[in-house]
Amino acid sequence: MFPGIDTVTDADVLDALSHDEAEWARVGKAIAAVRPRTTEDVASVVKICAERRIPVVARGAGTGLSGGANAVDGGVVLDMSKMNKILEIDTDNMVAVVQPGVVNDDLKAAVKERGLWYPPDPASAPWSTIGGNVATNAGGLCCLKYGVTRDYVLGLEAVVGGPAGAYGTVVNLGRRTTKGVAGYDLTGLFVGSEGTLGVVTEVTLRLRPARRTEPRTVVGAFSDVVAAGEAVAECTRRGLLPAALELLDRATLRAVEDWKHLGVTADAEALLLAQVDSDDAEAASIATAFTDSGAIWAEQSTDPFEAEALFAARRLAYPAMERLGPVLTEDICVPRSKVPAMLAEINGIAQRHDLQIATIAHAGDGNLHPLIITPAGDDELRVAAQAAFEEILSAAIAAGGTVTGEHGVGLLKRGGMNRELSPSVLAMQQAVKECLDPFNIFNPGKVVGNPSE
Amino acid sequence: MFPGIDTVTDADVLDALSHDEAEWARVGKAIAAVRPRTTEDVASVVKICAERRIPVVARGAGTGLSGGANAVDGGVVLDMSKMNKILEIDTDNMVAVVQPGVVNDDLKAAVKERGLWYPPDPASAPWSTIGGNVATNAGGLCCLKYGVTRDYVLGLEAVVGGPAGAYGTVVNLGRRTTKGVAGYDLTGLFVGSEGTLGVVTEVTLRLRPARRTEPRTVVGAFSDVVAAGEAVAECTRRGLLPAALELLDRATLRAVEDWKHLGVTADAEALLLAQVDSDDAEAASIATAFTDSGAIWAEQSTDPFEAEALFAARRLAYPAMERLGPVLTEDICVPRSKVPAMLAEINGIAQRHDLQIATIAHAGDGNLHPLIITPAGDDELRVAAQAAFEEILSAAIAAGGTVTGEHGVGLLKRGGMNRELSPSVLAMQQAVKECLDPFNIFNPGKVVGNPSE
Repeated sequence: MFPGIDTVTDADVLDALSHDEAEWARVGKAIAAVRPRTTEDVASVVKICAERRIPVVARGAGTGLSGGANAVDGGVVLDMSKMNKILEIDTDNMVAVVQPGVVNDDLKAAVKERGLWYPPDPASAPWSTIGGNVATNAGGLCCLKYGVTRDYVLGLEAVVGGPAGAYGTVVNLGRRTTKGVAGYDLTGLFVGSEGTLGVVTEVTLRLRPARRTEPRTVVGAFSDVVAAGEAVAECTRRGLLPAALELLDRATLRAVEDWKHLGVTADAEALLLAQVDSDDAEAASIATAFTDSGAIWAEQSTDPFEAEALFAARRLAYPAMERLGPVLTEDICVPRSKVPAMLAEINGIAQRHDLQIATIAHAGDGNLHPLIITPAGDDELRVAAQAAFEEILSAAIAAGGTVTGEHGVGLLKRGGMNRELSPSVLAMQQAVKECLDPFNIFNPGKVVGNPSE
Repeated sequence: MFPGIDTVTDADVLDALSHDEAEWARVGKAIAAVRPRTTEDVASVVKICAERRIPVVARGAGTGLSGGANAVDGGVVLDMSKMNKILEIDTDNMVAVVQPGVVNDDLKAAVKERGLWYPPDPASAPWSTIGGNVATNAGGLCCLKYGVTRDYVLGLEAVVGGPAGAYGTVVNLGRRTTKGVAGYDLTGLFVGSEGTLGVVTEVTLRLRPARRTEPRTVVGAFSDVVAAGEAVAECTRRGLLPAALELLDRATLRAVEDWKHLGVTADAEALLLAQVDSDDAEAASIATAFTDSGAIWAEQSTDPFEAEALFAARRLAYPAMERLGPVLTEDICVPRSKVPAMLAEINGIAQRHDLQIATIAHAGDGNLHPLIITPAGDDELRVAAQAAFEEILSAAIAAGGTVTGEHGVGLLKRGGMNRELSPSVLAMQQAVKECLDPFNIFNPGKVVGNPSE
């Protein structure tokens, strides 16, 4: 069907390529997976699929948490993992050009050798790809100070259809200059569109100079998560801007420790971890803000290994929780002043439904990840978990927040998004999709799809 | 025609409201200007105009330089200057909500009192409005380190039509949280769309904490502009990241000095001004980079008045040049390493056409503003100036740059944009416009309009 392009039809491999890590999202039955090696390969697959109206679902490493990369019935999975070359690192202009299959941490390592830094750091960075990061507009730990993936994407090459010409047309969106306003920001529109507007085949990224000082870590321990939330709000009020400000609750710490034995237990209900890359004065101010907000203790970590272990614990939180059972991952984002109230609300929801909910959070951004854990096979708890999931979304909307801060809409948040946005805005979203993908072959059903399907 | 809404039909006032500062762009003949005071006023005007298929051109202070706010024949000018309230400054969340008519510097002053900072600083900041800044995705001096207007717009209220419902529908795009990926980034799409997709009636802005240290200024004098360009490229290569890195050539300095007598003459062909808000070490490194690149002299300014005078000279450059005759303003942006070659190219174009071209630049961004000056009434020079204008655009495209870094496409850059973008991308732009504004009443002819009209 796709001459000259690696095609996978083996059922087991195809199954493995047909879903991301959103365990509770529906997975469609694909007819094949293909592994393009060039933009021309992608163009050829899209052209053939468009002619037959076969859906095309592009995927990176499959670390997504909303089902955005899940296969669609009768569709083709476009596994971008072989398009994994760093095409250029332009140190004079602090720009990198990469294929979508490049792993985030590999890019970080390559540019670091040239004295540069690619900041976006989703917890999945050791595995997730730039293409996947672009598709979901991935965030991470250091967005608080350094922004999200969209802030680093200057330009894109993509295979599109519709108004651009026949399906399979290759376009270059955006630019490689630091500034530019020639026409509508189609690059920004594609970032976060989860492959529903076209397939990204090349990404031009803005880089930053490597940080001039090693970041310091400030740790605070709190007797409950709400108090930790108050400390986060207080840091914002005081104009403190750490590079990262993360929250881990006791359940998360325990799960990581049981698995990896990093030695990061704490006799507290919640830890806050701040990473500071400005100066000692700001680190000290953050420790003071923690103490003033009722921390049991707060201190600057002088031991880089200890600090690294704490951030490693943060990054390992999700897989550690997954070991305890299927995890339904939330990704709400609320105004920072609402973090304490939102954490209290989550506690209440967990108690009402008799569920275990562990919370990790990019607390400084107001981006909370309550992880709802349910033992496999317990149907009653599963129903309760789904109810809790929707209640948390509603609470976030009521607090002036959003149902997804960084994981994307995919399949799991379509219902929540439909509650968050007005019918008029949803209609605009739908119109943009139809305008740029009139055959509805690019990852149909995701983002703007019908939540009841 | 618009009951209850201030309507202007006086010919002189209407003329004054019918154009921005792009002196060479065509100005259409409007039938009236209206001055709405509320979102409901705007919705009502848009509804009435849509029913009669009357074009609507929203305008702020009219400081634009591409003709984007110029009136359209038979259209209505929507003067947003009365919608100038700062609705909210939320210090806990570092967010401001403003009406579009708020002047940039007024917002800066208001948030400064609360310990906050709104970074985007176009040279027009004392007069230009947030609505105009949003329409053009305005840049400024400190974008190098702190980004452009789009980086600060979290959400928008806008009056739209088309898929959202009847023309006159009010929608809320985006969010007020720091992160959020619920659906396509329509907010980012509206920023920089120059009023062609709808009328923005409220803007939710991200703020930053006030800077913790007073910025230092580093000045370097160079014997020619190309050498100054080399110094800019060298700063980037060395990973130095000043908050601003501006270039002024001798013609500009002289024009400002003749007008304002700030005492900033220099016995040099070009000055570089760097504003550094990190630490003394970085300021010293920048001075060294200037010297290593052949500066006649380079020093840290220890006198805040002198430093302020230099940046004032930069801000006054455009009006100072305008006193010498109609100015055709360029706004190209090239990769930073190409700044020296581009400056040499501009010199060559000026000589070939026997034109006076003064250059000011956000050099650290690669964003150059060659100002082509022609004495009023000299038709031959006018033709030469237009030829030079297009040659500079072509040279920027050839250098991998863009025809507009921050001023917008408006009327003057439509031809250049059509050369910069491929026919496929232009078709996508046009499709987005038609999809969101099927009646083509929002600022028709701008951005995606036909350049020959």
